[in-house]
Amino acid sequence: MTRFVDVHNMVRWTASRGPENIIAGIMAYLEDDFRRWESFDKTPRVASHTPFGVIELMPTSDRETYGFKYVNGHPSNPARGFQTVTAFGVLADVHNGYPTFLTEMTVLTALRTAATSGMVAKKLARADSRVMAMIGTGSQSEFQALAFRSALGITTLRVWDTDPAAMEKFVRNMTPLGFDITVAASAHEALRGADIITTCTADKTNATILTADLIAPGVHINAIGGDCPGKTELDATILELGNVFVEYTPQTLIEGEIQQMPADFPVTEFWQVLANQAMGRTSPEQVTIFDSVGFAIEDFSALRYVRDAVDGTDFFEDIDLVANPENPKDLFGLVGALSPVGF
Amino acid sequence: MTRFVDVHNMVRWTASRGPENIIAGIMAYLEDDFRRWESFDKTPRVASHTPFGVIELMPTSDRETYGFKYVNGHPSNPARGFQTVTAFGVLADVHNGYPTFLTEMTVLTALRTAATSGMVAKKLARADSRVMAMIGTGSQSEFQALAFRSALGITTLRVWDTDPAAMEKFVRNMTPLGFDITVAASAHEALRGADIITTCTADKTNATILTADLIAPGVHINAIGGDCPGKTELDATILELGNVFVEYTPQTLIEGEIQQMPADFPVTEFWQVLANQAMGRTSPEQVTIFDSVGFAIEDFSALRYVRDAVDGTDFFEDIDLVANPENPKDLFGLVGALSPVGF
Repeated sequence: MTRFVDVHNMVRWTASRGPENIIAGIMAYLEDDFRRWESFDKTPRVASHTPFGVIELMPTSDRETYGFKYVNGHPSNPARGFQTVTAFGVLADVHNGYPTFLTEMTVLTALRTAATSGMVAKKLARADSRVMAMIGTGSQSEFQALAFRSALGITTLRVWDTDPAAMEKFVRNMTPLGFDITVAASAHEALRGADIITTCTADKTNATILTADLIAPGVHINAIGGDCPGKTELDATILELGNVFVEYTPQTLIEGEIQQMPADFPVTEFWQVLANQAMGRTSPEQVTIFDSVGFAIEDFSALRYVRDAVDGTDFFEDIDLVANPENPKDLFGLVGALSPVGF
Repeated sequence: MTRFVDVHNMVRWTASRGPENIIAGIMAYLEDDFRRWESFDKTPRVASHTPFGVIELMPTSDRETYGFKYVNGHPSNPARGFQTVTAFGVLADVHNGYPTFLTEMTVLTALRTAATSGMVAKKLARADSRVMAMIGTGSQSEFQALAFRSALGITTLRVWDTDPAAMEKFVRNMTPLGFDITVAASAHEALRGADIITTCTADKTNATILTADLIAPGVHINAIGGDCPGKTELDATILELGNVFVEYTPQTLIEGEIQQMPADFPVTEFWQVLANQAMGRTSPEQVTIFDSVGFAIEDFSALRYVRDAVDGTDFFEDIDLVANPENPKDLFGLVGALSPVGF
């Protein structure tokens, strides 16, 4: 049998454990996996683009366990009552190829994306960072806020979104959780005095959410909304202001902010910072930029975490996904056993 | 909600409809999809190889519907009580990216592989073919036999396998269904007088199940077991005996029998024969070879067929795979609604 965490169980589990605790738990798994980055099979995700959006498969393997995520990105979905991003994921045993674990990943992707941003900021943002500007208050935004509180103790937020209802929703969700939130009158105003800038917008266009003149020295930019060819958030000149950190260069070159730059534009893969193979922040004045697009290893870490965390609980059920004939060469016998004679 | 056909329902459905009827139904969907081959997004499958076997993702899309299959191939599995191949598959709506249909595909892959072989043989084998040699009587073999009866009326089989128990199993399963089966004493003997040769073996090696001296004029070879780099069944000289037909050349060059040949070895993509854009068999003496590795569009056809066929029945259940917040921008609200205050 294959273990299955459906949406209801994922939501129950997240609520009962607390999303901030779960983000912290995923962060620890992420750090483990990023430190052993070189031991993974890596490939840019396999994307199917249409005018409506993109559907992607994101596989990876550490040669013991195989994992992949199915994920879509459809920026026009919310206007039609659907979510921009939905996802599910699978773990399998490399030794026999059997899928062992299936889970919804719409909620889990938000948790893992936030955990990744938190992990990176803990290494790259100034340790004395106190204020975060959040540009975009859609589905991912609350999870991002919790991750930055978990990683860096950030509780002061300045938010901006083109959709006032989305900002109201953010304030309604997060104020009871102890955040001090200022709703700004513009992106420009939101950025004022921010130590960290999170951009989390979803338009499938080369948008310019930020321009270089708005970026103060020492800021850490957490750019998570640009993640498709033709979908960026930052003005190209921002990428020249400081050091750009990425997950997996071959994929980020296709999908990240750096798609705007020449192919030889210098970037650092973040795992190298974690493994002490590359420098992170080198001065308080430096601008650091995390050009995040999401990579399969992050889903792998999140899948591993949930699989381990729900073991021994009632937050999963068993489903009958893999045929199991008594004689493995007699698959047909499964059908024959149930058939009327001479079908 | 996402519709889910688990193993139990797939087996119940297959048994109640009859596997030969289902193979015929899939064959009709395959022919539709092969005729509109050019309208699909196509990519070689994404394979993760280890010494144990391979795990693959096989995506495709007709720009209305997206489909993919997860499938493993582990030749040493049966010796450990597991099946060589297990699979599951998904259909999604390209317009919003939501997965709509999930099904086991271990049984379904056997049905679709057989249907593909039948569809191809109906076009390429001599219409007066009466005897099929089957080399390899593992999990796929019974399904292959049913497909050739459905497509060409073949009821006379000559079988060989290195595992006597697998041959006994085949005879036990298929004799009651009206087949006239001769168990041969060797592969060589099985081939004598055969009009069609199906090779369906699973060793992950460059095996030589057939050599050129064993191939009579006019034979159609249905080579389905070679489907990985380093996994072939036919001696290279056989490929020079006649015309080689493939599914999708870029993938077959990597995985098929033609991996043994120079990159410019001439092949015909089968969809072209079906669409009257290329010649199939041109004489009764010609040897035709289907170098089959399995392609994503075949799974797409099979998934479409099952989705349509189980509609209105009780052979599926609804699962909660996609989070559905009332406000699509308020994913966090799903968690918050269930949380104790101040989690």
